[in-house]
Amino acid sequence: MKKILVIHGPNLQLLGSREPQVYGTLALKDINSQLKLLAAKNKVSLSIVQSNHEGEICDLIGSAKNKFAGILINPAAYTHTSVAVRDAIAGCGVPCVEVHLSNIYTREAFRQKSLISPVVKGTILGFGAKSYYLGLLALLDLL
Amino acid sequence: MKKILVIHGPNLQLLGSREPQVYGTLALKDINSQLKLLAAKNKVSLSIVQSNHEGEICDLIGSAKNKFAGILINPAAYTHTSVAVRDAIAGCGVPCVEVHLSNIYTREAFRQKSLISPVVKGTILGFGAKSYYLGLLALLDLL
Amino acid sequence: MKKILVIHGPNLQLLGSREPQVYGTLALKDINSQLKLLAAKNKVSLSIVQSNHEGEICDLIGSAKNKFAGILINPAAYTHTSVAVRDAIAGCGVPCVEVHLSNIYTREAFRQKSLISPVVKGTILGFGAKSYYLGLLALLDLL
Amino acid sequence: MKKILVIHGPNLQLLGSREPQVYGTLALKDINSQLKLLAAKNKVSLSIVQSNHEGEICDLIGSAKNKFAGILINPAAYTHTSVAVRDAIAGCGVPCVEVHLSNIYTREAFRQKSLISPVVKGTILGFGAKSYYLGLLALLDLL
Amino acid sequence: MKKILVIHGPNLQLLGSREPQVYGTLALKDINSQLKLLAAKNKVSLSIVQSNHEGEICDLIGSAKNKFAGILINPAAYTHTSVAVRDAIAGCGVPCVEVHLSNIYTREAFRQKSLISPVVKGTILGFGAKSYYLGLLALLDLL
Amino acid sequence: MKKILVIHGPNLQLLGSREPQVYGTLALKDINSQLKLLAAKNKVSLSIVQSNHEGEICDLIGSAKNKFAGILINPAAYTHTSVAVRDAIAGCGVPCVEVHLSNIYTREAFRQKSLISPVVKGTILGFGAKSYYLGLLALLDLL
Amino acid sequence: MKKILVIHGPNLQLLGSREPQVYGTLALKDINSQLKLLAAKNKVSLSIVQSNHEGEICDLIGSAKNKFAGILINPAAYTHTSVAVRDAIAGCGVPCVEVHLSNIYTREAFRQKSLISPVVKGTILGFGAKSYYLGLLALLDLL
Amino acid sequence: MKKILVIHGPNLQLLGSREPQVYGTLALKDINSQLKLLAAKNKVSLSIVQSNHEGEICDLIGSAKNKFAGILINPAAYTHTSVAVRDAIAGCGVPCVEVHLSNIYTREAFRQKSLISPVVKGTILGFGAKSYYLGLLALLDLL
Amino acid sequence: MKKILVIHGPNLQLLGSREPQVYGTLALKDINSQLKLLAAKNKVSLSIVQSNHEGEICDLIGSAKNKFAGILINPAAYTHTSVAVRDAIAGCGVPCVEVHLSNIYTREAFRQKSLISPVVKGTILGFGAKSYYLGLLALLDLL
Amino acid sequence: MKKILVIHGPNLQLLGSREPQVYGTLALKDINSQLKLLAAKNKVSLSIVQSNHEGEICDLIGSAKNKFAGILINPAAYTHTSVAVRDAIAGCGVPCVEVHLSNIYTREAFRQKSLISPVVKGTILGFGAKSYYLGLLALLDLL
Amino acid sequence: MKKILVIHGPNLQLLGSREPQVYGTLALKDINSQLKLLAAKNKVSLSIVQSNHEGEICDLIGSAKNKFAGILINPAAYTHTSVAVRDAIAGCGVPCVEVHLSNIYTREAFRQKSLISPVVKGTILGFGAKSYYLGLLALLDLL
Amino acid sequence: MKKILVIHGPNLQLLGSREPQVYGTLALKDINSQLKLLAAKNKVSLSIVQSNHEGEICDLIGSAKNKFAGILINPAAYTHTSVAVRDAIAGCGVPCVEVHLSNIYTREAFRQKSLISPVVKGTILGFGAKSYYLGLLALLDLL
Repeated sequence: MKKILVIHGPNLQLLGSREPQVYGTLALKDINSQLKLLAAKNKVSLSIVQSNHEGEICDLIGSAKNKFAGILINPAAYTHTSVAVRDAIAGCGVPCVEVHLSNIYTREAFRQKSLISPVVKGTILGFGAKSYYLGLLALLDLL
Repeated sequence: MKKILVIHGPNLQLLGSREPQVYGTLALKDINSQLKLLAAKNKVSLSIVQSNHEGEICDLIGSAKNKFAGILINPAAYTHTSVAVRDAIAGCGVPCVEVHLSNIYTREAFRQKSLISPVVKGTILGFGAKSYYLGLLALLDLL
Repeated sequence: MKKILVIHGPNLQLLGSREPQVYGTLALKDINSQLKLLAAKNKVSLSIVQSNHEGEICDLIGSAKNKFAGILINPAAYTHTSVAVRDAIAGCGVPCVEVHLSNIYTREAFRQKSLISPVVKGTILGFGAKSYYLGLLALLDLL
Repeated sequence: MKKILVIHGPNLQLLGSREPQVYGTLALKDINSQLKLLAAKNKVSLSIVQSNHEGEICDLIGSAKNKFAGILINPAAYTHTSVAVRDAIAGCGVPCVEVHLSNIYTREAFRQKSLISPVVKGTILGFGAKSYYLGLLALLDLL
Repeated sequence: MKKILVIHGPNLQLLGSREPQVYGTLALKDINSQLKLLAAKNKVSLSIVQSNHEGEICDLIGSAKNKFAGILINPAAYTHTSVAVRDAIAGCGVPCVEVHLSNIYTREAFRQKSLISPVVKGTILGFGAKSYYLGLLALLDLL
Repeated sequence: MKKILVIHGPNLQLLGSREPQVYGTLALKDINSQLKLLAAKNKVSLSIVQSNHEGEICDLIGSAKNKFAGILINPAAYTHTSVAVRDAIAGCGVPCVEVHLSNIYTREAFRQKSLISPVVKGTILGFGAKSYYLGLLALLDLL
Repeated sequence: MKKILVIHGPNLQLLGSREPQVYGTLALKDINSQLKLLAAKNKVSLSIVQSNHEGEICDLIGSAKNKFAGILINPAAYTHTSVAVRDAIAGCGVPCVEVHLSNIYTREAFRQKSLISPVVKGTILGFGAKSYYLGLLALLDLL
Repeated sequence: MKKILVIHGPNLQLLGSREPQVYGTLALKDINSQLKLLAAKNKVSLSIVQSNHEGEICDLIGSAKNKFAGILINPAAYTHTSVAVRDAIAGCGVPCVEVHLSNIYTREAFRQKSLISPVVKGTILGFGAKSYYLGLLALLDLL
Repeated sequence: MKKILVIHGPNLQLLGSREPQVYGTLALKDINSQLKLLAAKNKVSLSIVQSNHEGEICDLIGSAKNKFAGILINPAAYTHTSVAVRDAIAGCGVPCVEVHLSNIYTREAFRQKSLISPVVKGTILGFGAKSYYLGLLALLDLL
Repeated sequence: MKKILVIHGPNLQLLGSREPQVYGTLALKDINSQLKLLAAKNKVSLSIVQSNHEGEICDLIGSAKNKFAGILINPAAYTHTSVAVRDAIAGCGVPCVEVHLSNIYTREAFRQKSLISPVVKGTILGFGAKSYYLGLLALLDLL
Repeated sequence: MKKILVIHGPNLQLLGSREPQVYGTLALKDINSQLKLLAAKNKVSLSIVQSNHEGEICDLIGSAKNKFAGILINPAAYTHTSVAVRDAIAGCGVPCVEVHLSNIYTREAFRQKSLISPVVKGTILGFGAKSYYLGLLALLDLL
Repeated sequence: MKKILVIHGPNLQLLGSREPQVYGTLALKDINSQLKLLAAKNKVSLSIVQSNHEGEICDLIGSAKNKFAGILINPAAYTHTSVAVRDAIAGCGVPCVEVHLSNIYTREAFRQKSLISPVVKGTILGFGAKSYYLGLLALLDLL
């Protein structure tokens, strides 16, 4: 059974309580449950991690080879600032799909540049929690 | 039965023969067939148009209200240059999803800016023809 | 009796139904009626066209010489992207006045640059439908 | 009888003698006479001030509330440099119309940015002295 | 008894009536009263001036030496445009503290640059009227 | 006998009457006659089109394969704004030469960037109508 | 008794020994002692943390809700690079005050932009250790 | 006997006491004495004004025609911010020479742009008080 | 018999051996032979110089008047950096045509700006050695 | 015996398996062995750390004083994004040498700026693993 | 008797014949004669060189120490492009004055930046040949 | 015995006497002696040239093939301005190492860009004269 690594970037642990008018009232655990159902239906297992630590995210990605068949990542704030996460993805040898809850291109100027997009297979953004589900489908299709 | 308007922007009629090492050998009619199958499975009908004309694309979008429940668009070159298409989407009153075959953020600088992203519900890019299928799923989910 | 060419640029056919909180509920035909009344009062006749097609707008302007004494244009989205419309105005040999419903300088950055302003006699912006009426007065005064 | 405050910004006292090939030979007092005739015809009275002093212009605008029904201003050089005049207009609670004799968008780069446009009701530019007359009509219409 | 010069920059005379949803309903005289109480408590006297005139503000600062032990200034609009006020502060030989009612870094791009910050001892911004009180405390501490 | 597609971009139908002090008094039909003579002398036939429509130009280029051995294009205003024409040339599989009547690098800043140059075989600019003749020679030499 | 979270950002553990000619000889523990005295006098307790880890700072801020009534933060280097810390503050639901020892606007260009300022209640900078004390007073006043 | 208007811009009244390590210990009155001696030797008379007020400087320049044969100006801070002074010089009809005590091109970036240079006959900068004397010689030579 | 000065700019002596996959295996002497044949056929003589020295190129151009009827130049690297060569061409009083072997607009950003284009009669680029032959034809046509 | 701290920045643990066509097949442990041999030959001992954590790297550098005589660092991705690492180096009081395997100035634009270079003694880049050996020699020479 | 080195930069040998409507009909030898008269009157001797070669100008400046008491330079085109000439002046140990015939700040954008101004004692520009004479006076005064 | 070409760029002949507080008191001949000793120890011979002439440096590099096994260059000022030297290195077919005495990334903005770095094998900067010695070692290692 193939394994997929799901990475939730910084501050996503606050989902549900954080600016609910913007991000909705769905908590991260709700998204995770949905993702697991979808994974089960597609005969893959998920390993899900949330981390606020750029280094930890790099550690995870850097050691993904031979353990995971693909990576689904919402890099959150590190989308815009982390060359380290970008290099980890580029160098890890595992296909990666990038998702975002919100449409980052409608937000502040500094969010309108993704350092991550150039090194992933594809990007899905703006569909809320459904960005994750579509992202998982896209990743499964790539494998 | 709900109807979806699918718009293929400029030069997409060349798909399959145009730079196959970049865009693959799948022709536009093949993508359209797949989209129709997927639509049928989801009980919606599709109206599919390819146009190289910015004005024609605006005409279509501007008259979509009351005729279509949603719009799936690959704006191609107009992604980067057309305020007119952007305004048409923003003003048409119909939810719209943007897709791209390639990851535009790995290409020339002038392709790394989408005038369209800020006015659509969400964007899917980089998965080749699958960007369209995921986009249709995303649109169906929004309706 | 002198003739004036009035050109409504892209998406203005949606006026009234398009984002009424922004553009008001006045439809384009209402503005046209008002313009015709004002023209009649000033002993000129109007030829009014709305087009979403950059090329069509260029065709119209390019053939205006000897047919029209002046041009009143709301270039809408093409204000910001069309060197072709700019060149048509600069080369057509007919005096032109530019109008905008909204104050484009309070909107997105890409709307804060007019390619058209440098080639017209003058510009009126921000007064809603009244921008057109003032524009027609200004044009009459120039003739 | 409603009162309108007309403000002529810096160096406009030189009109007529200043670069006549650019600004024409009409003096400021000639424009003022025309404006007064037009005001009288429309049953409003005008209070007209020319000042080279940014602070004085702010003083005038800041104290306009309850004294004037509207402001007609040609901010001249302060168009491009004065956040103070902008803030005065934004904060004064009186509707304001901005006019320019010349088409500022055909001139030096530093003149192609108006700090004032985003805080006025509308702008009229490029029609010479007629910019003022059209501006007064526009202002009367707003009241 | 030490004397402090307090300078309120352009348009601050409108405080209370100017955009109350943004700036609150506290008038400038209320802030001045609070500042005087705080000064009395700290055994210093205040000389308070509001001016819309860049030159007048320069005059005041330029003659502060030997008359005042410190300057508390809210440069308002001149924060972003006045090299003259900057030079006056840099050259006057009296320690200066800069305050702002609002958080200028959340506002328009042109307000996100302070010409004044590099020449003052320190800056306090975003706390409304309390920015003044904290600024006075900071200044007293410097003396 | 080989066929060459010659495309005259927007507003070139005005040649001769449009700003003759800039563009000369030679009309487009005169250039076309010269081009045909030159083609005949070199044993190729020409298909010549003038269009103000970006979409029409894309249609023409997109269907050139197997019909034309080469394309000679003066993209005029679309030189600076059309990613669609660029993509059409890049994808059409037919060698293309770009010409300009005037030296675009001596004109406005927005004309000093060609979106088309990077996808053509070569560019000839600044020689007036002779740019076309030299361009045809260059294209013939490439075939 | 209300609790305040005080966060010292990266490299502040070096205070006192680090470039004393710039930052003075006061060590971080000295500032902390002063802050605790001031807190005690104002009947609040402090929880003080120094961390070089962006992720750890996000963890702390993200879990501050219901534990702390306010946050006093000197983001140091992360002021200029951390969207993650910005998002943590924006999403944590606890009022936050930003302080800086030095006047960042007199330093290198990359330090003249704060990603943090737009999401805090207010900012105090340039007063050395006193920035902290004034910041604590400002925070207490907000509670 | 010809008359020359000498204008000292903002903060120059502080000369001698203001940052003497930068500007030297020579006071403005010393420079004025030297200028008068030099003028007398050259049979012209001087009218010397120092002002911190942009408007006042515009008033002076605007009324110079028929009163003065030339203007010698050190615009100081207004060099970099005043379009109004620039327009006054361009419109006044009197030849003008610009001088600066310091080499503004070795100072902060915002001082490395002169709005005034493009409208004067010539500029002399970096020679301290001698910039004035050379400037007067240059002006005399122009008359 | 008219004489033409042909100038090959820096590093062109390496042609043939320098990056042959980019520049081809044709040596400079081969191009020169072809140019001479073409010149002979057109009854003009050529004086051909290759130089790596900016000053030498300026010397040549500066003394071309009365000696040469035209200049054909490939400025190579100096295209992008030499204001001196630009000024020499602008001031020499001899018509000049600019050629480039490669399409400079498809190369590094710093090569996408020609300082020379604005001062020549026209430019031909991207046709390899044929750029020279077309350039000579263009120059002959201008004489 | 003097001790040197060697820091390998983020993702360098992947060396050898990561994009071998770019970075070669040499693993980090191979470089470390070579460095230790070279150190032994020069009578210094090495403490070698690889970390993906910006904070950890700051911790290490911040505590290097009195423990290490010098630091040899390949900041990898943090070269371009970490003000925190820069401040740690600037404040730690230990001489530091920066090395890079690849020539960062031939790569993406965002890699062509080093935040670290301005605070180190010197930089060596582009020589692959040999950059480390040369860097160690340079550091030894500085001690 | 003190000696002064006078350097005329590239293309100044063309003075008089080069664009006389811009640069006047005065030849370089006329300026040199005037300079020598002025030098003689002031008891200094001049060594005058014109060169189009950046390297030659550097050679001259680099060997000026102990031979010349001062340098008067019109760097012409090298003003805007030569870091080498700048470094030569900064390193030569001889005071230098920069002059320009024209007002470079009214010309093309690339001429509005002087690399030389920051390393000279002062600059004189815009007075035609008189810039040289004033420059010599200024230099004599510095010695 | 292999031969190495060592090139010292412009103004390096001044070393020792030029700004000794910046560049030290070591003269160029001292560095050359050290380099020759190091070369002898490594069984290579050196050919050392210092030149202020961009063209001469291009001549040398262009003719290095078959004569030299490697090039060690300190391009000095030409680092930042010479596309010609860059092209010479790229085209000469001999491996090249770039060195700088000072850390150019701590100096003026225009020095923080190297046109040369992208075409050399590697770069060493900031170690003073030792940059040369390390550079020679690096070059020897490459051969």
